[in-house]
Amino acid sequence: MSGHLAIIGLGPGAAELLTPQATAALAAAAELVGYGPYLDRLPPRPSQRRHASDNRVEIARARTALALAAAGARVALVSAGDAGVFGMASAAFEAIEGGPAAWRGIAIDVLPGISAMFAVAARIGAPLGHDFCAISLSDNLKPWEVVAQRLAAAAAAGFVIALYNPASTARPWQLGAAFDVLRGHLPGSVPVVFATAVTRPDERIAIDTLATADPARADMRTLVMIGTAATRLVARPGAAPWLYTPRGVAVPA
Amino acid sequence: MSGHLAIIGLGPGAAELLTPQATAALAAAAELVGYGPYLDRLPPRPSQRRHASDNRVEIARARTALALAAAGARVALVSAGDAGVFGMASAAFEAIEGGPAAWRGIAIDVLPGISAMFAVAARIGAPLGHDFCAISLSDNLKPWEVVAQRLAAAAAAGFVIALYNPASTARPWQLGAAFDVLRGHLPGSVPVVFATAVTRPDERIAIDTLATADPARADMRTLVMIGTAATRLVARPGAAPWLYTPRGVAVPA
Repeated sequence: MSGHLAIIGLGPGAAELLTPQATAALAAAAELVGYGPYLDRLPPRPSQRRHASDNRVEIARARTALALAAAGARVALVSAGDAGVFGMASAAFEAIEGGPAAWRGIAIDVLPGISAMFAVAARIGAPLGHDFCAISLSDNLKPWEVVAQRLAAAAAAGFVIALYNPASTARPWQLGAAFDVLRGHLPGSVPVVFATAVTRPDERIAIDTLATADPARADMRTLVMIGTAATRLVARPGAAPWLYTPRGVAVPA
Repeated sequence: MSGHLAIIGLGPGAAELLTPQATAALAAAAELVGYGPYLDRLPPRPSQRRHASDNRVEIARARTALALAAAGARVALVSAGDAGVFGMASAAFEAIEGGPAAWRGIAIDVLPGISAMFAVAARIGAPLGHDFCAISLSDNLKPWEVVAQRLAAAAAAGFVIALYNPASTARPWQLGAAFDVLRGHLPGSVPVVFATAVTRPDERIAIDTLATADPARADMRTLVMIGTAATRLVARPGAAPWLYTPRGVAVPA
């Protein structure tokens, strides 16, 4: 078998954040597989075939990519951000585990990318400057009770929280419910960041507080970040304040 | 003031993982400020001055960079990985908050990079495929009790855990104590990854279990990752197994 599968994180969107490793792997692929809007980001190459799929069909998409690689093709399976963070990498290994034995012999490289929370953090300061966690707010693949329990544990333990998949047309109430859980564990003054389409031409970033955060600000392209009681705003002239979380935790008196 | 400060994440080490944005900012800088071994990674340019410092003097290093930028220079302050993840970005904003008012007017760009946990994850599969957290095991800047409480909360809530700064000559016992905390909340079969110098020529990656994990495997250049009870190994011919954490959580019966 001479096929190859590269599972590639495209980063948040800006070309200057795509790693040279990913650029080279994309150029070397004969078959590109991915969610349609992510494939649309890539420059056309007449020699390449594209296999675009809809949202929420990750296992089927992974199987398409694996079958092409098993048949000898050079395949790139793309995700936004980092493919290992709520992206296609986990789906691909799940498909391998449940697929033909031959798929375990496919040569695979996973190529990391800049995940949305780091692009967002860089735009506004250093909100992830201390211990943090990433939670997918989607309850398509896990019960809401697990999401709520993780939110409570993270807030109580003092983690900065990055929420992926905060809202979609099919999941309209989850972010509001998440804020309600967090308000039980954090002061209302804690900063909440809504960052939509970060590094894309239509990027929008707003900083609010947990007390007043409006879940309607979020859509499918939004990353929501919740600070801790220690997260600080640093005022500056002529621009929005910087936001950062200090590296240290004071020893209690 | 015409100075400029770029706070730059260099990624884990491999040149092919340095973003084009970071490459351009490094080339445009007149003054390079950073921990010596990180500056040593950068190609020499006769027109640039270097300000290398020792480990554990982050605030002094940040103040050096800020003072140069405030005086009108084009400055690059570098971190390994992502500067916002246990790197120089938070230290810089802390220095600004405690520094001269003029520092708040400095033009600053934070440039994201590939943090170690994503480079490690990509090398071995998709261990961060579900909700996860990052914890610095250093108790230089926070009491050990806070570290232990966060470890317990993260394990009990089902997060994959990435441990930064797991060990150093001055902090020899913390990783063993961390494993002891985790063993109180997770089965002994949970995978533990020791990844040292990832993407560097002397990279070493080993997969063990929580029951048998030996803290002596870790040093200053190691990232330790602890899976969840759901993290899976996928055997493959002629190579170490893939490691991945499934995207979903089963609904309890």
